[in-house]
Amino acid sequence: MSSEKVAIIGSGNWGSAVAKIIGRNVAKFNHFDTQVKMWVFEEKINGQKLTDIINTKHENVKYLPNIKLPENIVACPDLIETCRDATMLVFVVPHQFVTSICKQLKGKILPHAKAISLIKGIDVNEHGFRLITDMIQDSLNIRACVLSGANIANEVAEERFCETTIGYRNRTDGELFMQIFHTPSFRVNIVEDVVGVELCGALKNIIAIGGGLVDGLKLGDNTKAAIIRIGLYEMRKFSQMFYKDVKDATFFESCGVADLITTCAGGRNRKVAEAHVTTGKSFDQLEKEMLNGQKLQGTSTAQDMYNILTKKNLCHEFPLMTVIYRICYEGLPPIKIVEDL
Amino acid sequence: MSSEKVAIIGSGNWGSAVAKIIGRNVAKFNHFDTQVKMWVFEEKINGQKLTDIINTKHENVKYLPNIKLPENIVACPDLIETCRDATMLVFVVPHQFVTSICKQLKGKILPHAKAISLIKGIDVNEHGFRLITDMIQDSLNIRACVLSGANIANEVAEERFCETTIGYRNRTDGELFMQIFHTPSFRVNIVEDVVGVELCGALKNIIAIGGGLVDGLKLGDNTKAAIIRIGLYEMRKFSQMFYKDVKDATFFESCGVADLITTCAGGRNRKVAEAHVTTGKSFDQLEKEMLNGQKLQGTSTAQDMYNILTKKNLCHEFPLMTVIYRICYEGLPPIKIVEDL
Repeated sequence: MSSEKVAIIGSGNWGSAVAKIIGRNVAKFNHFDTQVKMWVFEEKINGQKLTDIINTKHENVKYLPNIKLPENIVACPDLIETCRDATMLVFVVPHQFVTSICKQLKGKILPHAKAISLIKGIDVNEHGFRLITDMIQDSLNIRACVLSGANIANEVAEERFCETTIGYRNRTDGELFMQIFHTPSFRVNIVEDVVGVELCGALKNIIAIGGGLVDGLKLGDNTKAAIIRIGLYEMRKFSQMFYKDVKDATFFESCGVADLITTCAGGRNRKVAEAHVTTGKSFDQLEKEMLNGQKLQGTSTAQDMYNILTKKNLCHEFPLMTVIYRICYEGLPPIKIVEDL
Repeated sequence: MSSEKVAIIGSGNWGSAVAKIIGRNVAKFNHFDTQVKMWVFEEKINGQKLTDIINTKHENVKYLPNIKLPENIVACPDLIETCRDATMLVFVVPHQFVTSICKQLKGKILPHAKAISLIKGIDVNEHGFRLITDMIQDSLNIRACVLSGANIANEVAEERFCETTIGYRNRTDGELFMQIFHTPSFRVNIVEDVVGVELCGALKNIIAIGGGLVDGLKLGDNTKAAIIRIGLYEMRKFSQMFYKDVKDATFFESCGVADLITTCAGGRNRKVAEAHVTTGKSFDQLEKEMLNGQKLQGTSTAQDMYNILTKKNLCHEFPLMTVIYRICYEGLPPIKIVEDL
């Protein structure tokens, strides 16, 4: 008899890519209910409901076109109905929706449910910052894991080889979530470090701005490797300064060094920062011109971190993050990225 | 009064680049003799001795053209004369010359001299392998440090920003060598781990072959980041299996993650491996066609490591290094790099 039932909260590009994996994996083990509900924010595509399209064509034509989803993935427009009888909740929505989703789910889920967050970003407020997993844990009173790694949704959906990292607090949770995510082309490592895994995913975008600046300045591979290395060092130092249990080893995992390398090689933060050097235009202007309505996470995270560092009088301990902030927001010349270190 | 005197053994591309740095740095401190002798393997350039050219033009026109060397760098064709009164010996020659150089220097140097090796590679024989620093230490009975990092000679000579790592056994040695190498654009970190620093420099070339294979297969940034990450993991595991004192932290230094990133982004090992996939030609043939007489270190190091792993029955613990060897030498299809992991 199945003892676990998975629900996926979110159905964008990344949510749909992992739905393909989860749908297949739950069918392999007796202890999972084979049906997996996926919450879809309902919208109309050429007059047809997106949930109906997904449930008949088995394809998310809007957010992950040309990839077949397993038939045991059932799109559902009702958040509560999606989650009501689930023991494992997979959160994969933009981070600004977490508070409202948790508010709706409060008291409506199984008390022994476990969560995993696939959400990148942290919640910054005037007192400091809060992890997404902590928001989920605190508001729903359940344990939350986190998944983060060098993963681009489309490449994962096409089954190109990559790795990812799950951070857990309770090992049984980590192993259970590993079962629904791990495949031969999507390798999962689990580590007992929720905070380290989650902070890697948030902080790497600042460093990617640095990588793009160095590309724009045409300083070469060695300078770029130095920026990535110093970036990884400051990410680790920051994490361990604010959370003493964060482990060194986490930064050797896919969520750490691998995701940082990928983000500094491709991605929009790198691209816009390079254009800032080559065109001389401001980040604000380039965001409008180049990103088609998407937001530049690297600059806003750099600002959030700078505010935290300033308040704690710690800027001198994080010269790379500080100089990146100043280049983005105070008009410092990009070459300062190497001169000010 | 000056208590330290530096000699540079070697004057190729890298030797000349560091001579520029060392010449300037020794002039800044009272405890260094300002004259630095540099041993040059004598050759004629358009009928003129290379040592004469270096000592009049202050430029190594053959191996580092268009870069001025400080006038206190004095080229010397005699190895013994170069080193006789030196307290700090900088070894920067191809690794196949180390044995013969040490044999010539034995008994001819100051007993309290200290050495640093800038040489990449390890010495493999039928019993296993030996570090270059151990060869220097054992044959000359002096302590040896090592310097390794994400450094390309020409970029360092042009003073583009990068970092490097010095591994030491004796902290005073490490700090002294740091003084002659560190500049604002060539940042030195020192770590108490000679073996870790040295093995990083040798093993990275194997992983660069893997990076090139993935590039040739067009598997994308995430797959490449995964190969780099697994490569770093296997480099660390190998080092710590054979030398228990090797530190995790060393792999976060320039010699570790940064040099590996650079080597997987550019460099001849990556380039030839990519061509192996796109042309289907053997590594031997491509080495002849593409490298203009230079040797491919990655494949031969992969073979050396494979021999060691086979002898110790450890191949299964190092799947990436093993599959790279098999692709290079046993005709395995390149796609196995992700399928066999």
